[in-house]
Formats: sequence, C-alpha cells, structure tokens
Amino acid sequence: MNGQTLHLGIAGLGTVGAGVVRLLRENAQAITARAGRAIEVVAVSARDRTRDRGVDLEGLTWHDDPLALVSDPQVDVVLELIGGAEGTARGLVEAALKARKPVVTANKALLAIHGAELSAHARENATPLLFEASVAGGIPAIKLVREGLAADRLLKVGGILNGTCNYILTAMRESGRSFDAILNEAQALGYAEADPSTDVDGWDAAHKLAILAGLAFGQPVRFDSLHVEGIRNIAACDQAFAREMGYRIKLLGLARRTEEDGIEAWMRPCMIPHSAPIANVDGVFNAVSTEGSFSGPMLIEGRGAGAGPTASAVVADVIDLARGTTLPVWGMAPKAAISCAPRTALRGQYYLRLLVQDRPGVVADITAALRESGVSLRALSQHGAEPAASEDSTSPAQAASHSVVPLALVTHETSEAAMLSVLEALEPLESVMGAPLLMKIETV
Amino acid sequence: MNGQTLHLGIAGLGTVGAGVVRLLRENAQAITARAGRAIEVVAVSARDRTRDRGVDLEGLTWHDDPLALVSDPQVDVVLELIGGAEGTARGLVEAALKARKPVVTANKALLAIHGAELSAHARENATPLLFEASVAGGIPAIKLVREGLAADRLLKVGGILNGTCNYILTAMRESGRSFDAILNEAQALGYAEADPSTDVDGWDAAHKLAILAGLAFGQPVRFDSLHVEGIRNIAACDQAFAREMGYRIKLLGLARRTEEDGIEAWMRPCMIPHSAPIANVDGVFNAVSTEGSFSGPMLIEGRGAGAGPTASAVVADVIDLARGTTLPVWGMAPKAAISCAPRTALRGQYYLRLLVQDRPGVVADITAALRESGVSLRALSQHGAEPAASEDSTSPAQAASHSVVPLALVTHETSEAAMLSVLEALEPLESVMGAPLLMKIETV
Repeated sequence: MNGQTLHLGIAGLGTVGAGVVRLLRENAQAITARAGRAIEVVAVSARDRTRDRGVDLEGLTWHDDPLALVSDPQVDVVLELIGGAEGTARGLVEAALKARKPVVTANKALLAIHGAELSAHARENATPLLFEASVAGGIPAIKLVREGLAADRLLKVGGILNGTCNYILTAMRESGRSFDAILNEAQALGYAEADPSTDVDGWDAAHKLAILAGLAFGQPVRFDSLHVEGIRNIAACDQAFAREMGYRIKLLGLARRTEEDGIEAWMRPCMIPHSAPIANVDGVFNAVSTEGSFSGPMLIEGRGAGAGPTASAVVADVIDLARGTTLPVWGMAPKAAISCAPRTALRGQYYLRLLVQDRPGVVADITAALRESGVSLRALSQHGAEPAASEDSTSPAQAASHSVVPLALVTHETSEAAMLSVLEALEPLESVMGAPLLMKIETV
Repeated sequence: MNGQTLHLGIAGLGTVGAGVVRLLRENAQAITARAGRAIEVVAVSARDRTRDRGVDLEGLTWHDDPLALVSDPQVDVVLELIGGAEGTARGLVEAALKARKPVVTANKALLAIHGAELSAHARENATPLLFEASVAGGIPAIKLVREGLAADRLLKVGGILNGTCNYILTAMRESGRSFDAILNEAQALGYAEADPSTDVDGWDAAHKLAILAGLAFGQPVRFDSLHVEGIRNIAACDQAFAREMGYRIKLLGLARRTEEDGIEAWMRPCMIPHSAPIANVDGVFNAVSTEGSFSGPMLIEGRGAGAGPTASAVVADVIDLARGTTLPVWGMAPKAAISCAPRTALRGQYYLRLLVQDRPGVVADITAALRESGVSLRALSQHGAEPAASEDSTSPAQAASHSVVPLALVTHETSEAAMLSVLEALEPLESVMGAPLLMKIETV
C-alpha cells in the first residue's frame, strides 16, 4: 500500500466488477481528491476474456487464476467480486489476508457464514477486510451501524434487504396477481434470477441480516441459528387480507437483544401496519432500520442492488483504505459467533391463514385449537363466502362437496411456541386444506 | 492524544453536554471495545457550577474559562457544546485547533458560517475538527455523505432539517389550527424555544443544509448566498389547499448541482407530493436525502435533536478520533467557499396563494399578470365561496363590502424570476389583500 497511487486487482468482472472499473474512471478526479491519492485498477481476473463488459480493459494484467492477484506485486488491494460462501471466493479472501493484502468484498454469504473465522484472520495478519457492498447495495448500512452508531447501545437492527422479494410482494399487492405470475414477470424483466431460490427463499436477505446483527452487537451470529423463511407461500388472498386489516406484507429481517441478554434474529414475511414508514418502502428498494437507546429509531432506504449502487459501496471502502482508515471486521476485537434464540422463544402477534372447507363447525374447531394452546384471538376474517353463511349449509355454494375458502385470523400477543402447537392441532383436521401460512405481525 | 485512555474536556453543560457525560458512562464498556481504548471526561467548563444536571460531576476539573480546556495538559480533545457562530464558541474552536488539540463540536452555525476558515485552520495545524452532531442529531448524515458516498458524484443533498418546524407544520396539518396557536403549544411542550426565530425563520435548518452541501460537493458554500425562508407565513388555508391538491407542506432544504456546474441551495417551505417518502416524515423527525449518479436516491430519517441522539453523534466522533480516523473537514483539501446560484435562476413549478376580494374580475386580473410574465397556469382553486359565485355578485356574502377569500394557483414549470415578476404585477392590485405566499413545488 505504499506509494502515491493505490493499485487494485479485481477478481470477478460481472456487472459489479465492470461497474467498479467504470466508476473509478468516471469519478477519478473527485475520488483522488477524497482519497488523497489516485486509485487505479491494474489487474483483473475473470473466466471469459472475450466477453464485452462495456468497459475498456486494455492495458490491465489479466490473470486466469484469481489467486494470482494475491501474489502479483503490483496489486495493493484485492477486490473479491466473485461471490459464493465457498470455493474460489473464500480461498481468495483467506489467501489475501494471510498475505497481508487488504480485501474489499461484496460477498454477503461469505461474511455471514464465515465472518467469525475471517475476522480472526484479518486480526492475526493486521489486514483490513471491508464489505460495505455486501449489505443493501448503495446504502452505507455497514458504516452507519459500525461507525455512525458506534457510541450507542443498539437494541435492534433490521430491514427490507432483498429487492427481488420486495418487488414481487409490491407487484402482488398492486396487481392482485399470484406469486408465480409475478415471479415469471420479474424473471423476464431481469429483476429475478433464473434460479430464484437464493432470493425468494430468504437466504440472500438472511445473509445481510446476519452481517448487520454482527455489527450492531459487535459479535458475529451463527448463521445456522437464524430462522429463515421465504415468500413462496404468500398468496393473493394474503395480500387481500393484509389490505383489509391495514397491513402490508414485507420480507422483513430483524435482530434484537432479548431480555436474557441474548439475540433474536430472523428473516421472514411479516405483516406490518401500513402507516409504519418501512411498510411504504416498495419495489426494488431496500431499507435498513435501527433503534438505539440514545439515538432512537432510524430508517434509511435506497437502492439495494445493481451495478451502480454496489460499485459506489465497493469504491467507498477502497477510499477508506486509501485514507488509512481501518477497523476490526465487527467493529471490535473478534469474538466467537453466538447462537440466536430458538424460534419457540419468539413472541408477538401472529397472522394465521388457512384454506378451509366452507361448512358448519369449521370455525369452532379452529378456535378450539387456539384456546387449547392458550392463544387469544383478536380478529377473524373469511373471504369467498359470507361469514354468516359459513355455518349455514343452505347456500348453493355449499352443496354436496363444500367449497374451499381462505380464512385469516390475527392473535393477541402470544408465543411462537403456542402458535406452532396450534399448527400441530390443526394438522389432523379434515376441513383444513393444504398448509397453513403463519406470519408475524411486526410494528418495527 | 498519547496514552491508553482518551481524555475529554467539555465546554458547555446543557442537555447535550450532560447527555455526553451520561452516555460515556452508561455505554463505557462497549465504547472502550469499539474505540480500542477507554474514553473519559476529565474536565468541564460551564457558567453555573451549582445547577443540577442529572449527572455526577464529582472529580472533574472545573474551568470557569472554556479556553482553559485548551491549555489544560490533561485534556486530549475539546468538545465544544456551547453553540453560536461567534464569541466564545468560535474562539474556543480556533484556539484548540491552533494548539493542535482535536475538536468535536455540535455547532451548526459555526461550521455553516466559518467552515472555510476553520477547515484551513484544521489543515494548517494537521488537527481534526469533527461535527457529526451539527446536522440532524442522531442521524449520521455527515458520515453518510462524506464517507459512505465518497465514491459517488452527488447530484443533490437535502432534507427536513428542523424538528420544531416539522412538528409545527405536522400539527397544523392534522389539527387545521393556525401557525400561532401551534407555536404557542409547541413552546409550552418544550418543542420550541421562547424565542423561536432561529427555528421558524429557517436559519437553523439552513445552517445544516450549508454543511451538507459543503460535504456533498467537497467545498464550503457561502452561507450568505443561500435563499432562506421560514414558515411563519404558512396559513391554515395553505394546509387545506395542500390536502386538496395532494401535497404536504414541509420546510425543505435542497442543494444541487446546476447545469452550469454551479450549486443551487435554498431552505424554504415547499409543497411535496404526498406519495413521496419524504412527505411522510412527520413530527419532530428529521430526514436527509441524497441522490448520486451511481448510488441513486437515498433517504434517511430519525431523531434530529434532543440530548440522546445528539450525544450519540458527539461520542461517535470521539470514537473515530480514538481510533485514529481523521479526514479533512469537507472530505478533501480546503477550497474557498463558493456562492450559490441567485434565487432568480431557480426553476420549477410554483404554488401561489393570495387573499383576494371575492368580486368580479379578480381572477381575470391575476391570470393576466401570469400571462404577462409568461407563466402557464396548471390549476386554480378558491376556498370560502363557490368558484362559480366569484364572478357573480348576487350571493349574500358579496354585498356592499366584498368578503376576502383565499385563492391558490399552481403553475407549470417556470422560472422563479418570472414568479417574482408576477408578484410585482400583483402588488398594485387593490383586490389582492396582504402579502401573497409563494412556495416551490418539489418532487425531491
């Protein structure tokens, strides 16, 4: 890192890698002024040498093996933009840290899953590892939590952390269409991957939440202890119930301190009152919320993905390096990762949606299951048939074979353990069709 | 700044100063972990030694003269929490920088008005001057703009930067009551000062905007070149028109690059479409918005004032110092302050509200004035009498002396110069009573 110009080696030339090259050139003058020295890409590594990436790579050293960036003496800083928790990306980051070459990465899975270990490597080798781009793209969420709120005791951190899911849920709400129809459309528009599971099953967002939790509480969380649910089971009827009850459905992540000095952390679809600021973060936008005992509540929203915002975050990290700013990975000396509280320890209000046969006695069976688990009902709504008609078999719709209608109920505050025992009690009921959908209600 | 523990001297023990003492004690363990060393207050200076501030000051050195903190050899860092652009605060900050003692301040007026000069002092003496608490309290707006978005070319920065004004405007909207009534109530609740002019005339918010602009564009702006208007002239009828037209009234500040490579910057009440996220930042909350060519739009909202949020920001700066992080005041080498574009160069849509006599020909006179200035009308609304009746003198309300009714019009995009010439043309009209109210319409 000596000398005037800071020389970068980039591994991975996808949209983000190409965006970094472009940003460094377009904003070169301002970046040099802010960093106090020039910053230049000198070497790259990517699989395909021939693909047109929209940026001129003339004059850059091309390494077929990303690890060659570590041993290339002209490279001061390695930018890992390959992705994935294992394999090449992990090997490259470890090798660079061991060679005392600073690393900037956008890799959320790597940090979420191997963050404890990597922070130990970074400390042992006194080498910075920066990852602003791994969470919420252009939103400087990591700097906000680790430095902006460094003085405060954070009680919780969370947010809407996957733009694909937020786009799908927003489009479902606005159009009344199904998850599958909107997903297909999002794939056609390039907002969703051909294999959408990382996004729609909640993993991508959960990785980001785990990183935010580690920064907020100064200690990595065990990723496998997070409760993670995706949005595949949200149906058009859930959006209709949400509207009727004054909620919006969001894939929400939250990590908060528990009374027992532990941490609760989960990523799951939630019902949020529509008047809450975070309920109005729509489309591909992301949002990060914090609450501190001194700073109070805070919410930041912006573009969570895309070449431009992500490149902006990567280069902000590089500028910090150029200025000589270095911090421990989790904002303080490394600690072992801690486990989150089990799902059964969660508490709150819940939304439970069932598909039920529209015939006499069904509501009585369901409310009996709630009573037996000690869950108190706050509201109940049934669509597709008049509620009054559901106990009355004279209507034409309820002839020989009973029609199936969605039924939603909202509980008073209870434990998630109690809700899971309600689900168990409903399981054998013949009048309950298919899998019930359980969502937490969160006021954030 | 050598040695393990970092020792602070605090000048000014109002609610913020006392909050800093309390925060440092309550969060001592986490702060030490994050800073890598202990941080302790060792000396203070304030006028009244006897006042109960809710914190134990036993054992701290008490200086009657704040300047004694500079010469006190046990003090590593001076916290200037006195306030005010001139006098003691300014003298203290300058003296500390010249003595090469780092300064942390919450003083927005000082930075906004003397920022260019102070950044030169800081550079000459290679001594950090940090001021996160000067803008938007607990929101780390300065770190966000100066470091989080350091890689990006910012096109604009702005926001809602005064909690008192936002509280008053929100309460006026919700209650339908007058500015004076709500101001009196806010004073009784402690949300507004006995002398409210710094807040309600826009100066406090304008100071913060000038600081954000300096950081966004890497160069201080001449504070006296900002166009500043307060909220005293907003009437209940303006809130009613805003509701009817789908807007919310906010004291909004914005600084943006102009096509001529200059900067436009102003603080003034604006009409904002109610669907814009910033239009929904209500009550005492503040918000900061940015737009970058790579990062896109971003909005952060939180508590903009109060002992807790402000103390959190002050101590975050102290932790940065303890870690050895130092940056130039405006994020790059000092430049001379630049002047903002004149008010007449602004463009946009405008809202113009007049109090007019409800008699024939008035609307014709007003629309003629618009036409002569080349301003095209988009919408017009009159309250208090049926629009049809306004050209019809048979209604009982328009007997001998004509009643006075509010009339609002909204223009298509035009120049502010044209709107000022409309105001001039309306001036001599006898049917226009009192001063017209002109507001910019901003989509942010």
